[in-house]
Amino acid sequence: MAKKINILGATGSIGRSALDVVSRHPGEWQVGVLAAGSRAEELAAACEACGAEAAVLADESKLPELQAALKARGLSTRAAAGEAACCEAASDPEADAVLLAASGAAGLPQAFAAAKAGKRMLLANKESVVCGGALLQQAIREGGAELLPVDSEHSAIFQSLAAATPAQREKAVIWLTCSGGPFLRRMDLTGVTVEEASTHPRWKMGRKITVDSATLMNKALEVIEARWLFDIPPERIRVVIHPQSILHSGVAFEDGAVMAELGVPDMRTPIAVAMAWPERTESGAAALDFTKLKEPLTFEAPDLERFPQLKLAWEALEAGGSATIVLNAANEAAVAAFLDRKISFLGIGRACREALSGLVLPAPKSLSDIYAADREARSFVDSLICSGRIS
Amino acid sequence: MAKKINILGATGSIGRSALDVVSRHPGEWQVGVLAAGSRAEELAAACEACGAEAAVLADESKLPELQAALKARGLSTRAAAGEAACCEAASDPEADAVLLAASGAAGLPQAFAAAKAGKRMLLANKESVVCGGALLQQAIREGGAELLPVDSEHSAIFQSLAAATPAQREKAVIWLTCSGGPFLRRMDLTGVTVEEASTHPRWKMGRKITVDSATLMNKALEVIEARWLFDIPPERIRVVIHPQSILHSGVAFEDGAVMAELGVPDMRTPIAVAMAWPERTESGAAALDFTKLKEPLTFEAPDLERFPQLKLAWEALEAGGSATIVLNAANEAAVAAFLDRKISFLGIGRACREALSGLVLPAPKSLSDIYAADREARSFVDSLICSGRIS
Repeated sequence: MAKKINILGATGSIGRSALDVVSRHPGEWQVGVLAAGSRAEELAAACEACGAEAAVLADESKLPELQAALKARGLSTRAAAGEAACCEAASDPEADAVLLAASGAAGLPQAFAAAKAGKRMLLANKESVVCGGALLQQAIREGGAELLPVDSEHSAIFQSLAAATPAQREKAVIWLTCSGGPFLRRMDLTGVTVEEASTHPRWKMGRKITVDSATLMNKALEVIEARWLFDIPPERIRVVIHPQSILHSGVAFEDGAVMAELGVPDMRTPIAVAMAWPERTESGAAALDFTKLKEPLTFEAPDLERFPQLKLAWEALEAGGSATIVLNAANEAAVAAFLDRKISFLGIGRACREALSGLVLPAPKSLSDIYAADREARSFVDSLICSGRIS
Repeated sequence: MAKKINILGATGSIGRSALDVVSRHPGEWQVGVLAAGSRAEELAAACEACGAEAAVLADESKLPELQAALKARGLSTRAAAGEAACCEAASDPEADAVLLAASGAAGLPQAFAAAKAGKRMLLANKESVVCGGALLQQAIREGGAELLPVDSEHSAIFQSLAAATPAQREKAVIWLTCSGGPFLRRMDLTGVTVEEASTHPRWKMGRKITVDSATLMNKALEVIEARWLFDIPPERIRVVIHPQSILHSGVAFEDGAVMAELGVPDMRTPIAVAMAWPERTESGAAALDFTKLKEPLTFEAPDLERFPQLKLAWEALEAGGSATIVLNAANEAAVAAFLDRKISFLGIGRACREALSGLVLPAPKSLSDIYAADREARSFVDSLICSGRIS
């Protein structure tokens, strides 16, 4: 019988890649629920393409639109909306796996729902790990869930650790690779414009994540993720700039061996890894041909002077409490302000640092504690900006 | 209680590296038997340094010299000599592991003895795999032995396959890396002298193996080894030139992921991997720091026109029978003739090819069949050279 997968964040780039992988294995995988934020029309189209059983939108106001779009296609797909419906999709007892690829804070309750329900979680939502931290780990343990990371770096680390014994994991050092972002070779970042920071030379992504890749905050968040996903303390996580993005990350062991995963950059690989593990399955990604690499593989230390955000990952982890939630929220608020042309590119990092040192909050005990810390950090940054202390 | 390791080939470079690794784990490992070819004095010195229980020389005529050398050091180490004594060391019921690092054909009976005795075999002797082939695999299965490869490439492949399920091994593609040898950038190889071919730009090794690394025959032999060590058919083995020797080899899976092992080139890493697996242990090798790599990592296809020996690996494997034994022996004879200035550098490859096509022998059924094929190939090459058909 085919295994059932629920895909949350179905209209985003990871969701679409996952649907592509699923479509390659018709007898083996079938789609249960497809969930998205608010794009009713796209969700209905995806349901038609994959024959999903149900469609769920987070945005309740769009339910009529979704129902109409499904009807217009002659589909009898069940439709629902709202956060509770999304969490039901995440914890669905019928699903063999749930892909958690909603973007932003919306992914948090979904991840906790899946964790508590003991699901096999294919996790692409950064925020749930960065903000959920120890709380999410606890929910996973208590619920008996299984977590498989879905992004190239953490999937590479996961695969590199796959044969490691518990004793070896205790000593492993993570090498997290980073493309370096669009400003890797730009020495002066004072005048960076919104246009410069929101277009990525290699990948087409959303504006917020493109700015994060320019400030290297995306990598700071991945350091925090790695700490929780693999239970490896921050002092054993290193970041290295690798502009070609062929080596997706690795793990160094005490005997000198570094295990790493390499490949053509294609999200379908980590998705297929998470779907099939411990087996593997055809993903549609092109095979890496070492003899046809266009460039040599280069590696260099990140410049922490020009990209101070990166350091904040270790500082936030060290600070504990709600610091990683504060860092994530402060960054989101500051990036929004930058995109609104209220602060400069370098202001983003300053806002993050101010928030981290100005807001010391205890460790969250619940999802609502996480939301409260998130809100507090956002208003802290907003007031920094309104008062002109960050510009 | 400390585990006991017998080291065969103790005075060679791998043996010495192994003794270094063992010395780092005094409570955990102790040396049982140290065996060597004929270097009595060095063997006695090694026994003194590591406190071995027994010393064995392959060369029986050197036994008195060994006994004298041990006595001169005031050691009560037992001494023995001859092939049978070496094979006893390889199959020693007291040993938890045996490192098979004798050089050349001498390693064959030792490997078979260890296999039949069901030992944990740390195998560095190429010839036993290249010539033993299916016969050695059978002995390993029947004896219940465990084979752990000890050289950087095959250890890297072993580690990269460690988490692979049987179904995945069936589809895996091996990427065997190759430094390219000293003539990687030399377009015309007609006039290569003995001096040029027997000094390696990066590593200090024996003359024969240095020539093999110049003709890429070493890599051809490793292709054959990989075929047997991992039971992967030749069409799923690829060679790629990687002059920096940082990526020690890898394995490509159907989802696009390539698992690889990287590290500072140091034989102590694969030795420690084989000793401790599935755990790992401190090896003395420096940790790879990606941010301090001296050169970018480059990869390119091997030039099969200039290095025709490489192709012979696949041809010999395809031919079956005793072809890999013939190839190995023909190469040894031809390299010896080259070092004796009887044939040219390019004559080595021609001799190998002539032997492969001229000598079609059935698959060996015993060690003596292997020796017979080996002898036949050597005399075939010798007569090619004497008759002036290869120069």
